[in-house]
Amino acid sequence: MTTQELTLEPLTAEAFTPFGDLIHSHERDYFLINDGQCRRYHRLAKVETGTDGGAILSLFRPRPISLPHTLVLMERHPLGSQAFVPLAGQPYIVVVAPPGPPPAVADLHAFLITDGTGVNYHAGTWHHPLLALSPGGDFLVVDREGPGHNCEEHLLEGIRLPVAPV
Amino acid sequence: MTTQELTLEPLTAEAFTPFGDLIHSHERDYFLINDGQCRRYHRLAKVETGTDGGAILSLFRPRPISLPHTLVLMERHPLGSQAFVPLAGQPYIVVVAPPGPPPAVADLHAFLITDGTGVNYHAGTWHHPLLALSPGGDFLVVDREGPGHNCEEHLLEGIRLPVAPV
Repeated sequence: MTTQELTLEPLTAEAFTPFGDLIHSHERDYFLINDGQCRRYHRLAKVETGTDGGAILSLFRPRPISLPHTLVLMERHPLGSQAFVPLAGQPYIVVVAPPGPPPAVADLHAFLITDGTGVNYHAGTWHHPLLALSPGGDFLVVDREGPGHNCEEHLLEGIRLPVAPV
Repeated sequence: MTTQELTLEPLTAEAFTPFGDLIHSHERDYFLINDGQCRRYHRLAKVETGTDGGAILSLFRPRPISLPHTLVLMERHPLGSQAFVPLAGQPYIVVVAPPGPPPAVADLHAFLITDGTGVNYHAGTWHHPLLALSPGGDFLVVDREGPGHNCEEHLLEGIRLPVAPV
């Protein structure tokens, strides 16, 4: 079996548009609230839950990976979005593929995040489970609770993340 | 006019129960996901939106206060919860009062948060606008978007937060 290595792409809102939203305030519009004392960067992401679900807040604490790293599987949640926001600016990698049939290797995109930006995967976006690069820090997760089968998996084989400077 | 000074109370889940949820992983139950590679501290808070609203993610960047500080007003959102989670562990103070009629001074409780814990105010909980103690760091805010009047205010006079070690 051959091993294929993904490229770590620069993270931009445009590059991430097919997969979801970026949660950060850098160069984003805001308005002032609280008598001018606070900037509100409004609605950077909407939580998708369908009409029969609700949004919940959880914390994830992943065991960190080291690079290079062999990927295991992709998953997706067809009924709701899922947001991950690092609570200590800790570095992580997201591997995503657009909604649709189980992704081929050419559909996969990997982004290295080192500036504390959070991500919100839209409902149906394929994504690898959380890939943290440092042991410190929890991730706030905002996702759907409700009836129905909301997780599909697709196994990967022979696909690897490269060594990267962090 | 006399000035009354609030006491900064220690933050515990029990003390905060009348007002909402605490978002942290310290001594909380979890289960393992992702083939044992990740702890999920599940549903630390539910987002309340009513049947006609939805949940959104925003970032708040408050101008920090210095202590002692005179409080301005309390507000509440009768139709939805509102969560604040510091993204750099930065210190802040929450001032809250239980749902009900506009609070008297005796109803106010002030908590100093220095360990990165987030808060989720339940719908109707009176709370002061965000009181950050350091200039660094945004807060992730999870609240309701939807029809209806979802903000009530109650002015305060002569109530002050004391100097505190941070």
